[in-house]
Amino acid sequence: MKIEKITSASNPKIRELLALMEKSRARREKRLFVVEGRRETRHCLEAGFIPRAIFYSPEITGGTPEDLLELIPEEAAGNTALFETSPSAYSKIAYREGTEGIVCEMHAKDDRGLSRLETGEHPLVVVLESVEKPGNIGAVLRSAEACGADALIVCDPKCDLYNPNLIRASIGAAFRVPTVACSSEEAIAWLKEKGIRILTAQLQDSEPYYDTDMKTGCAIVLGSEDKGLGHAWRNAADCHIRIPMLGRLDSLNVSVSAAILLYEAVRQRVGTKTL
Amino acid sequence: MKIEKITSASNPKIRELLALMEKSRARREKRLFVVEGRRETRHCLEAGFIPRAIFYSPEITGGTPEDLLELIPEEAAGNTALFETSPSAYSKIAYREGTEGIVCEMHAKDDRGLSRLETGEHPLVVVLESVEKPGNIGAVLRSAEACGADALIVCDPKCDLYNPNLIRASIGAAFRVPTVACSSEEAIAWLKEKGIRILTAQLQDSEPYYDTDMKTGCAIVLGSEDKGLGHAWRNAADCHIRIPMLGRLDSLNVSVSAAILLYEAVRQRVGTKTL
Repeated sequence: MKIEKITSASNPKIRELLALMEKSRARREKRLFVVEGRRETRHCLEAGFIPRAIFYSPEITGGTPEDLLELIPEEAAGNTALFETSPSAYSKIAYREGTEGIVCEMHAKDDRGLSRLETGEHPLVVVLESVEKPGNIGAVLRSAEACGADALIVCDPKCDLYNPNLIRASIGAAFRVPTVACSSEEAIAWLKEKGIRILTAQLQDSEPYYDTDMKTGCAIVLGSEDKGLGHAWRNAADCHIRIPMLGRLDSLNVSVSAAILLYEAVRQRVGTKTL
Repeated sequence: MKIEKITSASNPKIRELLALMEKSRARREKRLFVVEGRRETRHCLEAGFIPRAIFYSPEITGGTPEDLLELIPEEAAGNTALFETSPSAYSKIAYREGTEGIVCEMHAKDDRGLSRLETGEHPLVVVLESVEKPGNIGAVLRSAEACGADALIVCDPKCDLYNPNLIRASIGAAFRVPTVACSSEEAIAWLKEKGIRILTAQLQDSEPYYDTDMKTGCAIVLGSEDKGLGHAWRNAADCHIRIPMLGRLDSLNVSVSAAILLYEAVRQRVGTKTL
């Protein structure tokens, strides 16, 4: 691979990268997105994403990042640009403190529709309705990956799934958990068709989550922290479940709620999988 | 209460408030801290903290915040300063978007030592060792409050317990869950003396958390995300417990881990409390 040096923070390649970080429209139009960090890049490459360009700071990485370059398929490697960036140029594109010297532009994959979701015999699916903060969606992805969930469905999302804050909060899980964005109506129809039970997290008219059978295929559905779940989901639910709130506060963070409910499914399913 | 108007963002009262937000040393020396938001202020006042000053933006609150002033004890009300701030001055002190027009200076309480912690028959305690991010400690407090935990012990903390990011992430739980900062040695000695079993979260040499009895008094101990738990805790543990990681990632966010483990205790204890 040919290496080009970038010493100025106003280099057009840097400016283009920043636009992809900041603007969902730029990501959509160019079908590109940005990944920062060694671990995240590794997860992304291992999931089959193809890099368009890799920016690295040799002062931090200690040279070209060979371990990552090895993960690029041979036929794609020729089209991947390598940019060795000066410390000042790198500091312009690095978001994180203690960054790992790697920022990549990746080609987006085709929209992954509901019809392409593969589910096993007893799927475990997470659904988020109208959750606004990309960081919360990313945090849910991290927990979903850890508990072996089959998919995340984001209904009526307020951000695109390649938002850098989402990817960052997921620490790479965004590339490992199959994720679909669609309307609530589409998601409900799909879950019903597949026979996946809909369990909606809500305080009213609900039973404690640990009294609910999660051993067979189910979707755990959570709404936004402000507004909770919409009527479509409440009406479509097979069961309303709640996390008992034993203090004075009336809600948990959505990624915390998701993790508690997902791991209850793991606990109930012990014996059916190897832990 | 006498109301003073502040129209300039460079007013000395504003500058003092900002110093309390930004510097732990200022908080320690003046024995004051800052709370932002209507809900957080309410929790703080209800927990018996005494305000030194209340800054409010009448454009947002729609006048003096009577509902909060009512919560100040009569004997303290005379010493509470009320500052009606102009939009420009208020924007200087408000951290959050969509802020609720209230920022307060509160008197810190005496250090709450381990010896003052009150625990019931079967305490449920959370211990955090060397967790660096104040936001993570606050998020743990939020979950601890929700599940009715008796106390949080923060060992060898990297920030003070009145850090504004900690208070913000706790959405007020910081004032509701008894919290102590001390060394790991002190905490271990106290837990042993009280007969509270020590359950350390760690991947190595551990059993799945749901196979662990949490029905009787126990402390759930979590380390920093980077380094995990130190040897002192591992050696002192009555049981090593793990949250099974069924994907490729090797850790969960510390506040997510804490919530999963705490709610397992809640689940096991159902029937002994009213949910």
